[in-house]
Amino acid sequence: MSTGRTRLSSWQQLVEHQRALSGRRLRELFEEDPARFKALSRPLGGILLDCSKQLVTADTLRLLAALARECGLESWIRRLFAGERVNATERRAALHIALRSADPVALDGVDVTREVKRVLAEMGRFVRGVHAGRIRGATGRAFTDVVNIGIGGSDLGPRLACEALAPYAKPRPRVHFVSNVDGSAIASLLARLDPASTLVIIASKTFTTAETMANARTARAWLAGRLRGGAAAAGKHLCAVTAAPARAAEFGVSPERVFPMWDWVGGRYSLWSAIGLPIALQTGMPRFAELLSGARGMDEHFRDAPLERNLPALLGLIEVWNVSFRGAASRAVLPYDERLRLLPAYLQQLEMESTGKHATREGGRVDHATSPVVWGSAGTDGQHAYFQMLHQGTQEVPADFIACCRPHHRLRGHHGILLANFFAQTEALALGMNETEAEAAMRQSGMAAAEIRRLLPHRVFPGSRPTTSILLDDLSPRNFGALIALYEHKVFVQSVIWDVNAFDQWGVEFGKTLAGRILPELDGDGPVSGHDGSTNGLINHYKSRR
Amino acid sequence: MSTGRTRLSSWQQLVEHQRALSGRRLRELFEEDPARFKALSRPLGGILLDCSKQLVTADTLRLLAALARECGLESWIRRLFAGERVNATERRAALHIALRSADPVALDGVDVTREVKRVLAEMGRFVRGVHAGRIRGATGRAFTDVVNIGIGGSDLGPRLACEALAPYAKPRPRVHFVSNVDGSAIASLLARLDPASTLVIIASKTFTTAETMANARTARAWLAGRLRGGAAAAGKHLCAVTAAPARAAEFGVSPERVFPMWDWVGGRYSLWSAIGLPIALQTGMPRFAELLSGARGMDEHFRDAPLERNLPALLGLIEVWNVSFRGAASRAVLPYDERLRLLPAYLQQLEMESTGKHATREGGRVDHATSPVVWGSAGTDGQHAYFQMLHQGTQEVPADFIACCRPHHRLRGHHGILLANFFAQTEALALGMNETEAEAAMRQSGMAAAEIRRLLPHRVFPGSRPTTSILLDDLSPRNFGALIALYEHKVFVQSVIWDVNAFDQWGVEFGKTLAGRILPELDGDGPVSGHDGSTNGLINHYKSRR
Repeated sequence: MSTGRTRLSSWQQLVEHQRALSGRRLRELFEEDPARFKALSRPLGGILLDCSKQLVTADTLRLLAALARECGLESWIRRLFAGERVNATERRAALHIALRSADPVALDGVDVTREVKRVLAEMGRFVRGVHAGRIRGATGRAFTDVVNIGIGGSDLGPRLACEALAPYAKPRPRVHFVSNVDGSAIASLLARLDPASTLVIIASKTFTTAETMANARTARAWLAGRLRGGAAAAGKHLCAVTAAPARAAEFGVSPERVFPMWDWVGGRYSLWSAIGLPIALQTGMPRFAELLSGARGMDEHFRDAPLERNLPALLGLIEVWNVSFRGAASRAVLPYDERLRLLPAYLQQLEMESTGKHATREGGRVDHATSPVVWGSAGTDGQHAYFQMLHQGTQEVPADFIACCRPHHRLRGHHGILLANFFAQTEALALGMNETEAEAAMRQSGMAAAEIRRLLPHRVFPGSRPTTSILLDDLSPRNFGALIALYEHKVFVQSVIWDVNAFDQWGVEFGKTLAGRILPELDGDGPVSGHDGSTNGLINHYKSRR
Repeated sequence: MSTGRTRLSSWQQLVEHQRALSGRRLRELFEEDPARFKALSRPLGGILLDCSKQLVTADTLRLLAALARECGLESWIRRLFAGERVNATERRAALHIALRSADPVALDGVDVTREVKRVLAEMGRFVRGVHAGRIRGATGRAFTDVVNIGIGGSDLGPRLACEALAPYAKPRPRVHFVSNVDGSAIASLLARLDPASTLVIIASKTFTTAETMANARTARAWLAGRLRGGAAAAGKHLCAVTAAPARAAEFGVSPERVFPMWDWVGGRYSLWSAIGLPIALQTGMPRFAELLSGARGMDEHFRDAPLERNLPALLGLIEVWNVSFRGAASRAVLPYDERLRLLPAYLQQLEMESTGKHATREGGRVDHATSPVVWGSAGTDGQHAYFQMLHQGTQEVPADFIACCRPHHRLRGHHGILLANFFAQTEALALGMNETEAEAAMRQSGMAAAEIRRLLPHRVFPGSRPTTSILLDDLSPRNFGALIALYEHKVFVQSVIWDVNAFDQWGVEFGKTLAGRILPELDGDGPVSGHDGSTNGLINHYKSRR
């Protein structure tokens, strides 16, 4: 069974178009068309998206839009917003848009935004109570610190948002995150905190996630062991975000401290729900509402704008172009902003978990590449680390460059240097430096002819390496919300073209099952022998050394 | 001009061998050879390297060793250790091994280890003085905090090591790192510190690195503005690591506080030099010496062991196999250890800056792929983020799994879960789950036949995805040093096979030049027009919004 995507006429036209375009250089495209930037960049609210440094022409975008239409993208967008069960393997809707919608969103005839608003109101009461010191710990002290225990979608979104929005933080509580089951993470964090003024959030949809529950048990024991009143006192320091409230209650969380999740929101799309409680505790509910409204603006744009002027569609189709037609194996995400340094990790999950699949929606096998590797780190740090390879390596790596026009700090000089580097890197990657230019530059620096000859091959930059630039006016909650929603919808666009379900993640189950089988073997005496030779050997080595 | 590597007979044999092997599955290889683990794993000191889950056979390794010999690897290793100018474009030696050598290492007939020992003694006096409170700030208070200002090689190595060796930290000083020129990094750090007890290290080989100098000026102004005594008092809180001592003195660093670097050590190979001062300040000189001795053990092994039993050679040749013969575009680095969570970022620089090149040593053009993208993050976090793609994506991504048998914390339960997941993931990636097995698993869980049919395609795992496992006895300074040296030499092996200079980085210069040209334009009035349309447009948008 083949998905048939590669047999679509629009797909075939793109294959031919790519062949025709393959000799073209970005430098020429800019020289030929003085209006290229205007044609290929789009402002929306506080965001400017510039795709003019991608290896595309107006024809490419026309053909990509045709492919999108042939794949039914417009109807899939309608189905997403209409609450249809677009997550077919799990027979679920994917209604992250309902978490920030101003209009009713019906699921099986029931408007889910009423429940969303109820939970937001509940979060608001809790957050205001913590901030005002009305909600306190067992000893009567106000909460100065919050520890969010979760992993994957219950960690990356709120962690990124708390980091990004730190300039909007209330004086207290400080918010901390623990995800890794490696005990050194929670041990070193708890050592710095006072249990009497620490609130612990346990975030797990199922309330059975092995890593999260191990950390939750350790945190509960830490509270119970140090607070007068033991387990009962510890309960006053716990809250939970889960779709399994009974399990949370059994664990010792008071029912009024259990905030719900719903099966129509995937973990990696959930920072807008009660999973965002750490964000609200850090910045207050009005800021959290601004975050939601920023995402809402992007939702409405995605729903209403024609594909040709639709930012998430543009971004998603360009990635399809780079991956499926130009052979890109990865994309670098390069936030020139220290506060967005976790964005690459967040997008790794959002994108690779959503489209890193080989089965089509209907159970066939895709006959094209799906998710590239998403990676990166904050600029300018990357320039001093791996940019060598981006500029002169043998593999072309498309990249997203992201920056803010206005910083939140008042230090002089820094922001200009940061942004000058942002602009310079996209320029250098696009235009490159040919032999003539490299030679002239060396001659100008006074280098001897023999030395120039010797170094010339090492100082040439091929250029024509495609980048997308995203400029935010500033990193406000609203612009940050819009940025994340932009990427959420971009991924959905790719999933439609690539014919995969963006909302399931069967690939994570198998390893969990195997880990559950191995765990008791680690405690047993004597060597294990039930696995392949390597796994047996590694386990037995571990048992001999631990 | 072609490098000719692909025309070597050993290269051609590997191409043919790859074709012959391409249908083989890891599962079969383990079934056919019960001794596979023993044959393809190697212990060395506190490290076990297991390559048996790579898609190689004894023949592959024999052919790779032949390629290495045809490329002159053994002689290149001798030349590296002999202090020859293996960094030919810059006419420099690459003597990071001299930083930890027990034997003399001659450079132009002079033993450089004498100078190394002198600087280590100087570092030792300084570190002991800070720890004992003999070396203090302007107000007479002992230093409680150290801020290391550096970027790239002056940041990633000491930052990783300080994180990895945190369990060995002295009670004070606490060590912090600032690299990004984004002012929000240094602003938020300094806001938490007391200038009276803060020591600032400025680490820059040239003492002109734009980002580092911007942060250094901000730190100096912060000290001078808050300490009675202004600039003179600030000087008592500064030290420097640089090869340009005159510039450091001019900046206001006392000459006795300037620690040298040498042009025969590259930034990304320099954590063993005075660039490691933050490590020594955090853990004390005896631990720093253990770190060096761990690396020394790996050096001696790399120098002396035959290629077939040489760990760095094995690791490097397997990467050559995956990249150049099997088409891998990236490699994931997955430390199952929270303390090694910066290892992927460190290796990104070490590997991509060393081999991300298209020019051969002689100035030809390589006719094969060089550096893959290196990326990753701490396990088990990745399992809840991007492992979906590793298991079921359309692209095969080789991965290094790294863990420690013994943790440094005493929490019960955590380490078993962590390691069970480590073993399980390498097993799942290697063996996969075919239709029969997936169907049986679903049937066993009581699923209806129709549901099984519907879900089956989504629950199949192709497997045969290659991984390397590295188990350390524990994360001691010695084992950590050996691990980093293992990767240093691995990269050298690849550079020899790929015929690129591992020790230059011309690809970072061009962007710097362009940034220097753009910076004054940001201050000017009116729109800029001297760049391509996109760069003009972005700069002008920024100027209108800031």
